[in-house]
Amino acid sequence: MKYGIALFPSKQVQDIANSYRKRYDPHYALIPPHVTLKEAFEADEDHIEEVVQKLSNVAKNTQPFSLNINKLSTFSPVTNTIYMKVEPADGLMELHQKLHQSDIPNGQTFSFVPHITIAQKLSDDEHSDVYGSLRMISHEFEETIDRFQLLYQLENGSWTVYETFRLGKG
Amino acid sequence: MKYGIALFPSKQVQDIANSYRKRYDPHYALIPPHVTLKEAFEADEDHIEEVVQKLSNVAKNTQPFSLNINKLSTFSPVTNTIYMKVEPADGLMELHQKLHQSDIPNGQTFSFVPHITIAQKLSDDEHSDVYGSLRMISHEFEETIDRFQLLYQLENGSWTVYETFRLGKG
Repeated sequence: MKYGIALFPSKQVQDIANSYRKRYDPHYALIPPHVTLKEAFEADEDHIEEVVQKLSNVAKNTQPFSLNINKLSTFSPVTNTIYMKVEPADGLMELHQKLHQSDIPNGQTFSFVPHITIAQKLSDDEHSDVYGSLRMISHEFEETIDRFQLLYQLENGSWTVYETFRLGKG
Repeated sequence: MKYGIALFPSKQVQDIANSYRKRYDPHYALIPPHVTLKEAFEADEDHIEEVVQKLSNVAKNTQPFSLNINKLSTFSPVTNTIYMKVEPADGLMELHQKLHQSDIPNGQTFSFVPHITIAQKLSDDEHSDVYGSLRMISHEFEETIDRFQLLYQLENGSWTVYETFRLGKG
């Protein structure tokens, strides 16, 4: 089964992200707006409880942290993906690093650029238009993140939450 | 903020439910296939942790139980909603009852007919056609439920998981 790890920002940020995703992100219906902490990885259903135990230990030993969003940015020219840029603050980077320990299964790994996707799979022209009009809008948020979620993927590509982990608790 | 409580059946059951929901359920994109345990209720964000504490106590004092699905059924003529019928077994009914204690906020309450919706908001003709063709298909599943989820609703109607509660654990 395919699993992934993500955190959800506040409802306020999710609502704003969705106002863009609805028009510009074909993954709009598959998962709420999120920061991917660990890309999809394969794990056996019979062994997922071992992973859960490790994630619980990571959560227990990580304190809640501040999530800061300052602006929109784009992964262009690599991909035509526009996102809310999340500051790579210590707490977030530390959590990401712990989730990539060698004893937790890993999928594809990229260098970690924390973000909330709001538009993707745009043509070059769409990307120019959309980014041109969105980049001027101010998006500044600061909030506290006190949990992350382990999800699994259904056949239609959507994601269901398997378990919540509370930072500082497990 | 609007909260609700649901349990998700296995990936296998969710995939089958989605194969119907994709065509017949306008809520397909808003939440994965689920059994609603508590209809939407309003709760103040500042007080949700009190609710979480109560739900955690309910979970701690409730053992995992068997979920049995035997057939499809319909709420017609009340509404043109077709669903996988979930047996009202003791464990499930007990959990439902505990989640409706007087000290946990309640929304609209119906008598509890546990189900997984696979089609809704059909016209009378659509309902006849769809139910006529689906009712002959055998759907028998037995699985163990060991968790439930507290979710909140975004402005677009979709639901994000706030917390997972493990039965027998909290």
